[in-house]
Amino acid sequence: MNAKIIWLRNTISSIGLQGMIISNPVNIKYLTGIDAEGILLITRKENVYITDGRYIEYVHNTLPLFDEIVVWNVADLSQDDYENFFMFCEKVGFEEEYVTYAKYKEYIRKFKINSLVETENLIEKQRMIKDEEEIKNIKTACEITDECFTYLTKYIKPGMTEKEIADEIEKYYNSKCEGLAFETIVASGENSSKPHAVPTDRKIQEKDIITIDMGCKYKGYCSDMTRTIFVGEIPDYIKPVYDLVLKNQEQTLDAIKDGENTRLLTKMVENDFKLHNYDLIHSIGHGVGMEIHERPYISRQKDILLKENMVVTNEPGIYIPGKFGVRIEDTVLVTKFGCISLTKSAKNYIII
Amino acid sequence: MNAKIIWLRNTISSIGLQGMIISNPVNIKYLTGIDAEGILLITRKENVYITDGRYIEYVHNTLPLFDEIVVWNVADLSQDDYENFFMFCEKVGFEEEYVTYAKYKEYIRKFKINSLVETENLIEKQRMIKDEEEIKNIKTACEITDECFTYLTKYIKPGMTEKEIADEIEKYYNSKCEGLAFETIVASGENSSKPHAVPTDRKIQEKDIITIDMGCKYKGYCSDMTRTIFVGEIPDYIKPVYDLVLKNQEQTLDAIKDGENTRLLTKMVENDFKLHNYDLIHSIGHGVGMEIHERPYISRQKDILLKENMVVTNEPGIYIPGKFGVRIEDTVLVTKFGCISLTKSAKNYIII
Repeated sequence: MNAKIIWLRNTISSIGLQGMIISNPVNIKYLTGIDAEGILLITRKENVYITDGRYIEYVHNTLPLFDEIVVWNVADLSQDDYENFFMFCEKVGFEEEYVTYAKYKEYIRKFKINSLVETENLIEKQRMIKDEEEIKNIKTACEITDECFTYLTKYIKPGMTEKEIADEIEKYYNSKCEGLAFETIVASGENSSKPHAVPTDRKIQEKDIITIDMGCKYKGYCSDMTRTIFVGEIPDYIKPVYDLVLKNQEQTLDAIKDGENTRLLTKMVENDFKLHNYDLIHSIGHGVGMEIHERPYISRQKDILLKENMVVTNEPGIYIPGKFGVRIEDTVLVTKFGCISLTKSAKNYIII
Repeated sequence: MNAKIIWLRNTISSIGLQGMIISNPVNIKYLTGIDAEGILLITRKENVYITDGRYIEYVHNTLPLFDEIVVWNVADLSQDDYENFFMFCEKVGFEEEYVTYAKYKEYIRKFKINSLVETENLIEKQRMIKDEEEIKNIKTACEITDECFTYLTKYIKPGMTEKEIADEIEKYYNSKCEGLAFETIVASGENSSKPHAVPTDRKIQEKDIITIDMGCKYKGYCSDMTRTIFVGEIPDYIKPVYDLVLKNQEQTLDAIKDGENTRLLTKMVENDFKLHNYDLIHSIGHGVGMEIHERPYISRQKDILLKENMVVTNEPGIYIPGKFGVRIEDTVLVTKFGCISLTKSAKNYIII
């Protein structure tokens, strides 16, 4: 059995569950490597993956023998089979933040489960701590993003549209890895004042500010980086804002380490922005892994302690509505004594 | 109040509900035109839309005054406000196939609802019957798809890759409407034997068979069409399969009308395929509207009676593993006495 499934079996047993139904496809991929449609059952005796005819062959080819996962075609299962999976189980766990109310009721009925109980995102929480291979994949995704950014600083010229630049990023990623981790943001001029801007047909002009938020997927793992760059020169009125964002991004980078509180990290940035009459309008980071946004979320809402081998973003930003915005973001690896920035592109004034 | 919200208020009242929480964003867009993140409440006295700071301005600009929807920023709501929405309501409906179990419990707690009850997809079922404007939009989406297909028959040349053709379709749609309704399938040669093939770098060759499954979105409504075409000539061993698929597609077209049973429609095709030693491996159609796949699903699983002003696809297909596949699909409008194909591209042997 692979280490992740062994971990899950031990964990559910330690919280008094005799079984679990895993429905979230990202969690199933995390535990088994299977990227298909189906559900994974952890039963007293076995690990079972139920899928349909479209995926049976693929699943058999994906699973190494030692994973000890029994694969079933849903078409071959009788009502008795369903009832046997969790027979003599008092409590079976499920993913209450993924499973709809209708599915919840269907599980109880089909599997005849006495007590189907919430598991409070236990797999998502485990996913926060990356193992060696996961870190290696994220690191590679970050390297490809750095290379793509270097390429962009030579590629971008006045007269190109935001969409053309976004398309070029997609082409670059497609040639190097599995492609985009999320829809690229290329926001120029006043568009940069919107944190979630969608690339438009606006043409890059001389003296423009351009915010580029980009990331790719390598072996199923994401990278996430933002740089704010300038065409020809950086206008004087933008400099103090850029400096303030960069200062806070670097201070946060210095602060991130095992044991650090995410609410305090956020407060630090928020206070410094306020001192200069700016608001912090979004959270300053999030976990990165199989999903581009995952736990932990670094915001003022909740006290979470960062832990060794979490991978998170560090992305403060300031936005002046209708004028411009500055955001600088790295993907970083939390270690015992500090953090390592996995994206390494320059952050001083980048003038193209 | 708009006709759709009046319909919903009358319907829930007729089934003994005093209120409803609508969470599915497609249903919210259908009822209100709002395309944002939030929930819609139908209360005894009011219609309420709860969203957050990012969307408040957009929502106010979207809603016509006569819609009588009160808009709230979630940040301004107290626990008392939540409890007031459904005060004195005995039964409140929710969407059990969209809402997670965790959200279901949160709704009960936050709104203090005595009895939160399932509504069995009542809005999705209403969405099956299209009104005049919806039909007009789907018709336009189908016309754009026909035009794009005509363009393709001149554009496609041996040596191009499947991906290049798919990209060209996307570019065409982006220039005419809101873009793709779903990821285009361009499956050539042996790839055409996979019903859900993803475009590859395979180059189109002389004597190739190419299956193209494409559709776009116009004013929020989808089109869906498949044609199987040939390069230079149609190989003799493919002709009987093409003819059999086309015959069944046209017979189904002749049969579709108000009152027709979807299981019987499917059985008709299945039986004729079996007579010729082929299997029907997927359902022969689905509803098309705001979503590319929606109710009704035309398969052997369930007896559904088609009704006037439903819009469905008609898409039988035969697939010979590792060799080739043929699928022919139109989007059609059900009427009292028959159906009207909204996609009108030629279906005889199309040789480019």
